[in-house]
Amino acid sequence: MFQVNDNYLKLPGSYLFSTIAKKVNAYSKANPDKKVIRLGIGDVTLPIAPAIIDAFHGAVDEMGKAETFRGYAPDLGYEFLRNAIAENDYKARGCDIEADEIFISDGAKCDSGNIQEIFSVDNRIAVCDPVYPVYVDTNVMAGRAGTYDARKGTWSNVIYMPCLEENDFVPELPEETPDIIYLCFPNNPTGAAVTKERLQEWVDYANRTGAAIIYDAAYEAYISQEGVPHTIYECEGARTCAIELRSFSKNAGFTGVRLGFTVIPKELKCGDVSLHSLWARRHGTKYNGAPYIVQRAGEAVYSRAGQTQIREQVAYYMNNAKYILEGLKEAGYTVSGGINAPYIWLKAPNGMTSWEFFDYLLENANVVGTPGSGFGPSGETYFRLTAFGSYENTVAAVDRIKKL
Amino acid sequence: MFQVNDNYLKLPGSYLFSTIAKKVNAYSKANPDKKVIRLGIGDVTLPIAPAIIDAFHGAVDEMGKAETFRGYAPDLGYEFLRNAIAENDYKARGCDIEADEIFISDGAKCDSGNIQEIFSVDNRIAVCDPVYPVYVDTNVMAGRAGTYDARKGTWSNVIYMPCLEENDFVPELPEETPDIIYLCFPNNPTGAAVTKERLQEWVDYANRTGAAIIYDAAYEAYISQEGVPHTIYECEGARTCAIELRSFSKNAGFTGVRLGFTVIPKELKCGDVSLHSLWARRHGTKYNGAPYIVQRAGEAVYSRAGQTQIREQVAYYMNNAKYILEGLKEAGYTVSGGINAPYIWLKAPNGMTSWEFFDYLLENANVVGTPGSGFGPSGETYFRLTAFGSYENTVAAVDRIKKL
Repeated sequence: MFQVNDNYLKLPGSYLFSTIAKKVNAYSKANPDKKVIRLGIGDVTLPIAPAIIDAFHGAVDEMGKAETFRGYAPDLGYEFLRNAIAENDYKARGCDIEADEIFISDGAKCDSGNIQEIFSVDNRIAVCDPVYPVYVDTNVMAGRAGTYDARKGTWSNVIYMPCLEENDFVPELPEETPDIIYLCFPNNPTGAAVTKERLQEWVDYANRTGAAIIYDAAYEAYISQEGVPHTIYECEGARTCAIELRSFSKNAGFTGVRLGFTVIPKELKCGDVSLHSLWARRHGTKYNGAPYIVQRAGEAVYSRAGQTQIREQVAYYMNNAKYILEGLKEAGYTVSGGINAPYIWLKAPNGMTSWEFFDYLLENANVVGTPGSGFGPSGETYFRLTAFGSYENTVAAVDRIKKL
Repeated sequence: MFQVNDNYLKLPGSYLFSTIAKKVNAYSKANPDKKVIRLGIGDVTLPIAPAIIDAFHGAVDEMGKAETFRGYAPDLGYEFLRNAIAENDYKARGCDIEADEIFISDGAKCDSGNIQEIFSVDNRIAVCDPVYPVYVDTNVMAGRAGTYDARKGTWSNVIYMPCLEENDFVPELPEETPDIIYLCFPNNPTGAAVTKERLQEWVDYANRTGAAIIYDAAYEAYISQEGVPHTIYECEGARTCAIELRSFSKNAGFTGVRLGFTVIPKELKCGDVSLHSLWARRHGTKYNGAPYIVQRAGEAVYSRAGQTQIREQVAYYMNNAKYILEGLKEAGYTVSGGINAPYIWLKAPNGMTSWEFFDYLLENANVVGTPGSGFGPSGETYFRLTAFGSYENTVAAVDRIKKL
């Protein structure tokens, strides 16, 4: 008789963003006259840039003709895209990453959820707290997290690294030694960035202790300050300890297009087993490649026109971020982020909890944000707003919050 | 210090089709003058049908305009597609499957590899032998398969159900009781079909023993005979024991487009835990939806024009199948399949092993097929040819084989 994977039953409640969606739908249904502005989920709103749309149409036409039709893609992605990534995202920054160390996928969420599969179930993970929920949830599902303490909101076998105002939302090296360290910079949800010097400390620590770093750089395109690394491979020694996850969702608006990639340098090994070969095996067995037309669209992101157009989109969102940041400061809120990331992290006022402030904002300003506690216990009393709305909605939302 | 998932290290060699690709590339490099015809991997060759191409272009245009741009898709897929599937693939056949029991994905390979994650690692699987390698390999990676016996080519904790000439390549109910049963009909690799009566026996057996059936119906569109079920839900009681996997790869040529779906009826439970809710949790946490444009293309498959066009494509491939089947029979081969499936299964002549015949065909006829032993021990001395080539290549390949 079949049994279920009972690790799933340990997961409390549903996925954070599903819960938010349900709450917002219920509110909208009960209040059909209210115009709700969503600055909660990190979904983009600008349409796909023209140069990318052109590439899409071209690739669709190719799929409609016998001479240019493409069936199964190469397991690890088309070379045209892997070469464009190696050249533009790595070699142009002086980082020694080869095209065959890049694995094309359908997005950083999937990769960040799947990557743990190639590690031992006995390994212990460390995560920033607060953190993108997928890292912890997928480790729970795999049986790596231990038991849940509902009161504390923590898992017994996960090392939490608090990211708070006092450490500029960048974690300290942990006291207990983890096997796998998830880092995300620029950070979701806090919007904090890490300097190259601080990140180098992490790389040195990982190499010293034999830990692997899973570095989520999905928000790299939003970095505006000097001294903030665009990739972990800017740090010396990262090739022997770090996996990097990247996305086209936030730089090119591909949230509904689905494209991302994972970099695994060939030197990253446990004994003589390379993680590169294990991920290649997983990719080849449990995945079947990103669509050809989507990979062609990804290639167009790196064209001259594509680069110009997507930079304008990033600038548009960062203008929103600035408006939120300054508006909330004026209104007396404690805020951070929003300079190297499209997220603004604010302290809920008057001792409210995260979910109390969520309900308060939804009901009184009809603005949707994300409760910080959904990202981990140290997120309690914090709240995330995103800069991904339209400028008009962003201004309206901030003005409504100011009037509360 | 991190450790790897050492289940991966138990896997012998590389994924079957990667091995074939390497062998063929090596041969082509050494013999650049030889025109190799590939009837090995099950990849289609006809371009995407015009009605689907139109839908693609329309959806791409939507993604390029602010008013119609779509970001993250609903976790389980867009309703327009789930409704079209429920209506056309199930209700039209008298099967009681609701749209919210359908989970849209990027293909049946991914689903067939991922589905085991929601089951206990202690569950024991049964597979047809020979079988599509992904079922077993992904269970090995998850630690469910036991140890490998290289001499026999079997895993200690997997129940193999031989599919041979004497049982028309449809397995008998196993002597040992499995928890999870993988069935694929029309079958890959043998091309065999199952009658509704035989499938009903499996459904009854699963309900009686509390096993779950994972029914891979990726080749459903190729069924030409009456009495062969198009979905397992034609059988009574399937809603309490069966998951069905479906694909757009073979009916609509989506191998490079990537779209599929999984059906999990809400009555399929272990105690009070529904597999539907676990898969929804997995989908929402480790996956982020199929691209909007691809889901629109999938919808067009069900349009009147789409249906007409894809049926012509299926007929084209089945004409190839007929040519192979008859040609090889004439040449004295023992062959089966090819009537309800795009695969022809033949016995290697003169006592050759599967790989010996692979090399023999590659070197002497410059034709690539798939060695039966790559699909399991009972596939040894068998060989798979696919009908997915062009008509011209199919004719040329068969003529070359006849001349050997």
